[in-house]
Amino acid sequence: MLYLVGLGLSDETDITVKGLEVVKKASRVYLEAYTSILLVDQSVLENYYGRSIVVADREMVESDSDEILRNAETEDVAFLVVGDPFGATTHTDLVLRARELSIPVQTVPNASIMSGIGATGLQLYNFGQTVSMVFFLDNWRPASFYDRIKENRSIGLHTLVLLDIKVKEQSLENMARGRKIYEPPRYMTVGQCAQQMLEIEEEKKEGVYGLDSLAVGAARVGGKTEKYVAGTLKQLCNADDILGPPLHSLVLLGRRAHELERDFTREFAIDKELWTTIWDRDYGKQ
Amino acid sequence: MLYLVGLGLSDETDITVKGLEVVKKASRVYLEAYTSILLVDQSVLENYYGRSIVVADREMVESDSDEILRNAETEDVAFLVVGDPFGATTHTDLVLRARELSIPVQTVPNASIMSGIGATGLQLYNFGQTVSMVFFLDNWRPASFYDRIKENRSIGLHTLVLLDIKVKEQSLENMARGRKIYEPPRYMTVGQCAQQMLEIEEEKKEGVYGLDSLAVGAARVGGKTEKYVAGTLKQLCNADDILGPPLHSLVLLGRRAHELERDFTREFAIDKELWTTIWDRDYGKQ
Repeated sequence: MLYLVGLGLSDETDITVKGLEVVKKASRVYLEAYTSILLVDQSVLENYYGRSIVVADREMVESDSDEILRNAETEDVAFLVVGDPFGATTHTDLVLRARELSIPVQTVPNASIMSGIGATGLQLYNFGQTVSMVFFLDNWRPASFYDRIKENRSIGLHTLVLLDIKVKEQSLENMARGRKIYEPPRYMTVGQCAQQMLEIEEEKKEGVYGLDSLAVGAARVGGKTEKYVAGTLKQLCNADDILGPPLHSLVLLGRRAHELERDFTREFAIDKELWTTIWDRDYGKQ
Repeated sequence: MLYLVGLGLSDETDITVKGLEVVKKASRVYLEAYTSILLVDQSVLENYYGRSIVVADREMVESDSDEILRNAETEDVAFLVVGDPFGATTHTDLVLRARELSIPVQTVPNASIMSGIGATGLQLYNFGQTVSMVFFLDNWRPASFYDRIKENRSIGLHTLVLLDIKVKEQSLENMARGRKIYEPPRYMTVGQCAQQMLEIEEEKKEGVYGLDSLAVGAARVGGKTEKYVAGTLKQLCNADDILGPPLHSLVLLGRRAHELERDFTREFAIDKELWTTIWDRDYGKQ
């Protein structure tokens, strides 16, 4: 059996009891560690589970999935995923491959950022499609998020923006020379995300959002040190100190917001008066 | 401290290790049991936790929240919610009330149907806003879901439809006579939902969806007996026998679907050939 086990969002104790039982009895345990990360190190997980873990990088999961699935017809293999197993496309692929090999699959769900973001007080049923924001390069600034946000905002919905993480990346030079030397991990912050969003608006000028659009920055959702900051996109460009360490996410508000959402998020506002003024002017319209 | 603890989707072992620790040490333990249910009885939970539980019905949570919050400045109170604590508005209200009383709040997230529905193989970032479907009465057929689905479909997105549950409801006669006699619980099925959707389309005739629109019915998501059925809305009207007992949910597909989603869901199709034919004709358009 292939078990896809969600680990939740924060630390080693966010695994479900059911998931922990699976990990303890599986023949092999893999940890997918490139679409998201927990806030604790691998060694903490290994001590807690009493098991050693093979870290599965993108190359392994996408090109060598048959090694992960080896003997899973007769043995139990646990594939651990931060958040919920079906948050990222790549795991759907793994299940399809298992089906081809007639390997039974069972999923142990867990909290995902897609539902955990409800802790901002913004209602999950008011969210439109989720978008991703990648680190811009000088000559590569993918902006498909802009059209998606435009669609969400045209019908008054919030947008969850998931922020890029770079783990086990090689510099161009090291890649060219075939040196398996990896850069230190990088995690996009809410400030960088807000900045990139404003750059694209500046470029496209379709008025999808602007400096005074309201948004909520979230850090370490579901963890003991979780932190939320509400403000305009302009304010959030400089709110990384308040938010602290990774992982960060951002929600851009839609105008069809409920006053319960206003009351809940105002608590997180950098400037409560400004938050209320802009809210009353631009939001809460059905 | 008020702890909002998510229980996940299925049985007593879906609680997280962190959540279980909270339940074991709290002074009082409440279970919110009217927005969703687990697939196991209260007694199973009580035996597993080694704690007795107070079932909190809607009246208690909405009108008597101060009793739930009593002494929570100094004691730990655990408020258990099926799925994730922030899935339903009513819990946001409870947190706001706790804030007014200066009671600290901590949340233990868990799987929600809003993320667990990814187990259908439909990608979470292709979903628009979530809608709810209530049991129609002869003279009361609320159809606001129709306009929401229209918005989602206009931009090519899937719609998750959450289905009504009725627990601890009184008949009109018993209510009028002040008799605290409650009807047996009722859970809407995918068949009833598909039927009501088609009735409203028949009435409004805006062509938002029709008999041959593709959808996936889901039952007991995340549980050992979870079941998925893919078909046209017409087919799903009669698929309850395949899906089995509650809880059910339904996803209406948007046209902007990825071929990975087609490959994954075809496995669940009542008629694979028909599924592929309609998909290739109407879906997968960017």
